[in-house]
Amino acid sequence: MPTPRIKLVISFDGTAYCGWKSQRSGCGVEDHVRKALAKIVPNASPLESSSRTDSGVHARALVAHFDSERADAARLALALNALLPPDIRIVSATRVGENFHARFGAVEKEYRYHIWNAPATNPLRLHDVWHVPQRLDLAAMNRAAEYFIGRHDFTAFTSKRDGTLGDPFRTVTRCSVARSGGLVTIRVVASGFLYKMCRAITGTLVAAGRENISPEEIPRLISAKNRRATPMNAPAHGLVLWAVRYR
Amino acid sequence: MPTPRIKLVISFDGTAYCGWKSQRSGCGVEDHVRKALAKIVPNASPLESSSRTDSGVHARALVAHFDSERADAARLALALNALLPPDIRIVSATRVGENFHARFGAVEKEYRYHIWNAPATNPLRLHDVWHVPQRLDLAAMNRAAEYFIGRHDFTAFTSKRDGTLGDPFRTVTRCSVARSGGLVTIRVVASGFLYKMCRAITGTLVAAGRENISPEEIPRLISAKNRRATPMNAPAHGLVLWAVRYR
Repeated sequence: MPTPRIKLVISFDGTAYCGWKSQRSGCGVEDHVRKALAKIVPNASPLESSSRTDSGVHARALVAHFDSERADAARLALALNALLPPDIRIVSATRVGENFHARFGAVEKEYRYHIWNAPATNPLRLHDVWHVPQRLDLAAMNRAAEYFIGRHDFTAFTSKRDGTLGDPFRTVTRCSVARSGGLVTIRVVASGFLYKMCRAITGTLVAAGRENISPEEIPRLISAKNRRATPMNAPAHGLVLWAVRYR
Repeated sequence: MPTPRIKLVISFDGTAYCGWKSQRSGCGVEDHVRKALAKIVPNASPLESSSRTDSGVHARALVAHFDSERADAARLALALNALLPPDIRIVSATRVGENFHARFGAVEKEYRYHIWNAPATNPLRLHDVWHVPQRLDLAAMNRAAEYFIGRHDFTAFTSKRDGTLGDPFRTVTRCSVARSGGLVTIRVVASGFLYKMCRAITGTLVAAGRENISPEEIPRLISAKNRRATPMNAPAHGLVLWAVRYR
């Protein structure tokens, strides 16, 4: 019989951390989760996770798993949360089958990017929205967004250096922009994301919304495969890893 | 000709402040706004405001006004925001008629209270939601909420000491509870609010949602006029002064 596998769904405010992944300095969110886990489930296998996230990026539902003979899934979230800092929370811990894999089983990920689009920013959302004071043209942003949908070489929309990129193709299944009062929400769903891809797409959509570029330039920007020709990345703190979906 | 009057709409994260009202210690939000205003419009009349708010309570749109011969409404919000801390923002500054009065002209105020109702709290909303882990019965909360609608003596739902209360009657025109995922939002609209009235109503609605009291007990709690018989106040940090409406 295989060792029981536990799936964790983890939510965090990334402000104080240098991303999800463990760092030698211990500033990764994963470092804190590993440390708490080691106290409660000393025999756990190493954590496998759905995603890295950049420094300052948030997560609503990052997924990880580990194997352990002794973990009590029912009480694990409560026990881990008692040891974790308040800006990292285990949303749920559930027993899953041996075929579940947090990283390799993920078929789709959704990121959301939040912008506060009004002359003054929202003081209650300083930590998780990008303030863009100039009125954004949502129709132009959505026209631009549609060009990202489909299977494309996203070399022009990643900050990876040449030669370290690997396969630059990703399939985007949703890219859309909606407004509710001052809050503009960008939703991007894809099979996977290249390094800083979501922030590069967001920066480009905002450039279209401010009429710095025309939406119709997007196909040319994609096919040029030149990061320097595309608009700047949106800042990290507006981005949230929203959901990871499995078969 | 009367001195031109300027209306300010002010938004703030109340976490770092001891409420709106000026304090000798300078920890009121108003102290910061007055200080910034004095630099830009040295001849301004004293600020009049729609509301006090308790220590730790937030505002989406508190309203204030002042008179000045020289204020340039069009550039004032930008100028004040450049001097204010980032957790206090002037949302708008507009020229209004001499009959506008931020305090005496207000005919209706709306407060919203945000609760995160899931086993683990939301790390991105630590500063502005009350975490209630036990599943709340929204139907019971809404049955309870309806009993608050109408003109009532709210003595049992204020923390004012006897003898300092004044007129204890207020007219509540809306009291409702809605859920969106983990987020439970309580909306209370009234002609005005007694000291800590909204937090007392919220505490009572949550007691009904947790089945600690029956919704049908509310009329008896109101008519008993006994603060000690009603459930505890909800904490300050979940409350937002949402809107102030004028004739």
